[in-house]
Amino acid sequence: DPNLKVFSLNSNPDLAKQIAEHIGIKLGKCIVSSFSDGEIQISIEESIRGSEVYVIQSTSDPVNQHIMELLILIDALKRASAKTINLVIPYYGYARQDRKARAREPITAKLVANLLETAGATRVLTLDLHAPQIQGFFDIPVDQLLGVPTLSEYFMSKQLEDIVIVSPDHGGVTRARKMADRLKAPIAIIDKRRPRPNVAEVMNIIGDIQDKTCIIVDDIIDTAGTITLAANALVERGAKKVYACCTHPVLSGPAIERIQASAISELVVTNTIPLPEEKKIDKIVQLSVAPLIGEAIIRIHEKLSVSRLFN
Amino acid sequence: DPNLKVFSLNSNPDLAKQIAEHIGIKLGKCIVSSFSDGEIQISIEESIRGSEVYVIQSTSDPVNQHIMELLILIDALKRASAKTINLVIPYYGYARQDRKARAREPITAKLVANLLETAGATRVLTLDLHAPQIQGFFDIPVDQLLGVPTLSEYFMSKQLEDIVIVSPDHGGVTRARKMADRLKAPIAIIDKRRPRPNVAEVMNIIGDIQDKTCIIVDDIIDTAGTITLAANALVERGAKKVYACCTHPVLSGPAIERIQASAISELVVTNTIPLPEEKKIDKIVQLSVAPLIGEAIIRIHEKLSVSRLFN
Ligand SMILES: Nc1ncnc2c1ncn2[C@@H]1O[C@H](COP(=O)(O)O)[C@@H](O)[C@H]1O
Ligand SMILES: Nc1ncnc2c1ncn2[C@@H]1O[C@H](COP(=O)(O)O)[C@@H](O)[C@H]1O
Repeated sequence: DPNLKVFSLNSNPDLAKQIAEHIGIKLGKCIVSSFSDGEIQISIEESIRGSEVYVIQSTSDPVNQHIMELLILIDALKRASAKTINLVIPYYGYARQDRKARAREPITAKLVANLLETAGATRVLTLDLHAPQIQGFFDIPVDQLLGVPTLSEYFMSKQLEDIVIVSPDHGGVTRARKMADRLKAPIAIIDKRRPRPNVAEVMNIIGDIQDKTCIIVDDIIDTAGTITLAANALVERGAKKVYACCTHPVLSGPAIERIQASAISELVVTNTIPLPEEKKIDKIVQLSVAPLIGEAIIRIHEKLSVSRLFN
Repeated sequence: DPNLKVFSLNSNPDLAKQIAEHIGIKLGKCIVSSFSDGEIQISIEESIRGSEVYVIQSTSDPVNQHIMELLILIDALKRASAKTINLVIPYYGYARQDRKARAREPITAKLVANLLETAGATRVLTLDLHAPQIQGFFDIPVDQLLGVPTLSEYFMSKQLEDIVIVSPDHGGVTRARKMADRLKAPIAIIDKRRPRPNVAEVMNIIGDIQDKTCIIVDDIIDTAGTITLAANALVERGAKKVYACCTHPVLSGPAIERIQASAISELVVTNTIPLPEEKKIDKIVQLSVAPLIGEAIIRIHEKLSVSRLFN
């Protein structure tokens, strides 16, 4: 369909290329550069009048640059008479700033939703929002895909035995349950508690992990503190082997060092955020969500339900 | 008035301090930092419920970072029940992206205006917008101060003789005329023309500059191409000495080198954009607009007209 156009911004060009290949079209021509003073210059090199446009951009580090690129391209597309402007945001940044945890905090996840709509977005497709409430921050349709099917498939192909899916906290139990159902495995939960103020946290494990192969699953791994402590605790309590997996490999600060030093034998992530060379270590396996996103774009464009992609 | 609060973000802390001193209050406490993954974290350390808040931030390089800081602070202030959120944007970035010069270009100056309003800004105070039309991009009140009075005062104090105020292009004649009125001097205009396509531009000078002391005035000096070529042309045509001045010293890329190598004997700028150490060269004099902005804030807060500050 010549009315379907896919454009990539700077966060994730490889994923964008794979998505376009999956759909069977060429990426739209669009030059994103900077003026001498750092202002973003965008020029769309083909007509998009009346088109259904999909823009691929994770709001990953450098997050503010990536958000502004996205907003400016939306503005240009809107003024060039795109029929619809569909944002594909594999990783939605600022998702952890989704509530006022303390007085006078911003709710940046909501602010960014408002900014995208103000610029002219008409639809959002994303993966694993840190909080499902973020869907409600938008007044336009939001479809959320999950990393769990892709991650589960990988572990299925490994034909592991005696596995337990582990949630690193109580917030992640639903995700762990989804993965456990696919892998026909039981779940366990890491129950962190601080017995008294100013006393170190205790890692209590709910569920049987003795001599089991554990797969810890999370949505985001950022500095990798939680996940590496969890892995070490599992091994201490008798787990045979520990895998970890997540959808969004933020991997900032000490993450890589911590993962290297930890009891995690393999970390499986997706490519919602690209891994720069220095983060491509032997322990990390990266799976592509391009087929999933490509399929979702085809289904949205053909006005079919994408909900079957959720299971 | 305890209801008047002034906060500074990261673009221009020195100017903000001077403004607060001029008003006679302390800057509001607000910590702007980054999480490990580059996301901005803002925490306002004092109650601002019911306050009239002024936020000082130029959207200068790194412009995207500075815009996001501003948007996030506005969001936090709004949610913390500020009565009004007044943006003091000494330098309004993206101002040159104010129209579609080519097909499918964004109008980023308008986009940013929309974003600031969406976040919750209730008023804007700025200096020398690159195009006066940008005031109309906002649906909230916008007051525009001018750099010319501050710049003119400096040249007045030098007691120069036989001066001519020079506009580097036809777009800047109104500004040059204002400065000429203050300094009781005639004006001249640099009239660039390309006689035929692919032939170098010819610098034609309209007005008498022979044996005169020229003061070129512009709003923004970015890469300094225009202003240094103009200065050299003036000297070639018989000018005795050439000063240059502008409100906004963007000074990106080759600017400093070009200024050093040019016929400009002194460049006078304001502090709407701070000069990093490597740009503080002997030829450049920086004047503070803190008294002007401080006065404007006092007058806005007391609901007096700020228009007398324009002359
Ligand atoms: N980019 C970030 N990096 C680390 N912590 C964050 C970030 N954004 C927000 N937070 C904090 O993370 C907490 C929310 O995380 P969670 O409990 O996992 O939803 C809040 O206390 C936030 O202040
Ligand atoms: N940050 C920038 N640096 C250099 N040129 C720019 C910048 N932003 C916009 N422009 C271009 O500058 C021209 C407008 O400048 P002007 O004619 O002075 O209003 C347009 O052609 C823009 O594409």
